[in-house]
Amino acid sequence: MKRIMLVVAYDGTKYCGWQMQPNGITIEEVLNRTLTELLQEQIMVTGASRTDSGVHALGNVAVFDSETRIPGEKLSYALNQRLPKDIVIRESKEVEADFHPRRCVSQKTYCYRILNSKFPIPTERLYSSFIYYPLDEKRMEEAAAYLIGEHDFKSFCSAGSQVIDTTRTIYDISVERTGEVITIRLTGNGFLYNMVRIIAGTLIKTGLGAIPPVKVKEILEKKDRSHAGPKAPAEGLTLEKIEYCNKIY
Amino acid sequence: MKRIMLVVAYDGTKYCGWQMQPNGITIEEVLNRTLTELLQEQIMVTGASRTDSGVHALGNVAVFDSETRIPGEKLSYALNQRLPKDIVIRESKEVEADFHPRRCVSQKTYCYRILNSKFPIPTERLYSSFIYYPLDEKRMEEAAAYLIGEHDFKSFCSAGSQVIDTTRTIYDISVERTGEVITIRLTGNGFLYNMVRIIAGTLIKTGLGAIPPVKVKEILEKKDRSHAGPKAPAEGLTLEKIEYCNKIY
Repeated sequence: MKRIMLVVAYDGTKYCGWQMQPNGITIEEVLNRTLTELLQEQIMVTGASRTDSGVHALGNVAVFDSETRIPGEKLSYALNQRLPKDIVIRESKEVEADFHPRRCVSQKTYCYRILNSKFPIPTERLYSSFIYYPLDEKRMEEAAAYLIGEHDFKSFCSAGSQVIDTTRTIYDISVERTGEVITIRLTGNGFLYNMVRIIAGTLIKTGLGAIPPVKVKEILEKKDRSHAGPKAPAEGLTLEKIEYCNKIY
Repeated sequence: MKRIMLVVAYDGTKYCGWQMQPNGITIEEVLNRTLTELLQEQIMVTGASRTDSGVHALGNVAVFDSETRIPGEKLSYALNQRLPKDIVIRESKEVEADFHPRRCVSQKTYCYRILNSKFPIPTERLYSSFIYYPLDEKRMEEAAAYLIGEHDFKSFCSAGSQVIDTTRTIYDISVERTGEVITIRLTGNGFLYNMVRIIAGTLIKTGLGAIPPVKVKEILEKKDRSHAGPKAPAEGLTLEKIEYCNKIY
């Protein structure tokens, strides 16, 4: 028996997120089915990040155990032949038997993309969130700075979450504009349910001038979801990479 | 009766190109249907560029004549409410009765996007062409320089074309790399059938090292389609803008 790790990129547009669920097709389900068919044994992957419906990934991570004699590094080629074009295995390899994709994480990077223009651009609509009113990215950056560091992010966690400890560390947040596209990039040791999208929604409110940047500090201190901004749409979000003990996937 | 001009952006992924045809849905057809419904009169648009199946646009141009009392500038809003999300009217306005979107063109700009990476990225697949082997963008730029100016582009025109005069002027071609994405941008007074995609395919061959950059000069001189490279895939191509007498759409 060996444990194999996959680095998975996907276009989340057509999927009901990562995790198996009864109402629609998910990334996890497609991987399980494809691996089971390919390896001729029942495979169940464990994912690092259970991305929401419509969210994309450049480097999510999954592991599974198998009796296969195919070398770990070769599996990605066989899988990519069989997977739909909106799911790509970037890397596959054998890992230690005790490697767990959630417990061993050292940091994750997410990117939130906003199209800030007078009209929506059809070729951007699947991978960004459209905002018509001008956003001031300097104000957004100023607001974002209050979130860097170790904080209780309860205000930025969806109300339905069952997590008890809502303290997380954000190592860095950058806000950059290239023409009509604003990119928010966040790196942290972990993110609560919907945390990145609620942060994006709150920064958008700051950028619109609806709240002053310093207000973000107050929102953090309130530890109450109702004070933060709305959850920004899924299509703007991409899980870019997951790092394990200085190794990037 | 007034003549109204539309600047149209679209994601060409799901369409069989611009021009009406029996085998599938086209941009022209959707515009005609939507305008006819909205204005309650039979509308037939005339397009500036009959983009191929799968090709995208940021700024194609169409005109039509109508008896409507809706001001030209307001039409875009009413249309965008009714159009599918992959077609957006960026601008609408009344123009002179003799304005013709093909005859009055002063220049067009196309962009060809290549993803040059070790694995395809799912979120790039609809708007770029994937090339696994490393491309040398400096060689591509060197090759592109031979195409700038007034030339007979017969070698870069699909064999089926009925055009008699195959002379066109390319004002500029740039080849730029940003990380794993290479962008070829061409501006000219007009382009022959499949010309941009055949140029892109030929530059890709140069970038791969399959032919030396100077060979492009020879290909031009041969005036024979069989000497140029293959036609690069549609999904990488976007019609960026059309300019009319110093005015950009």
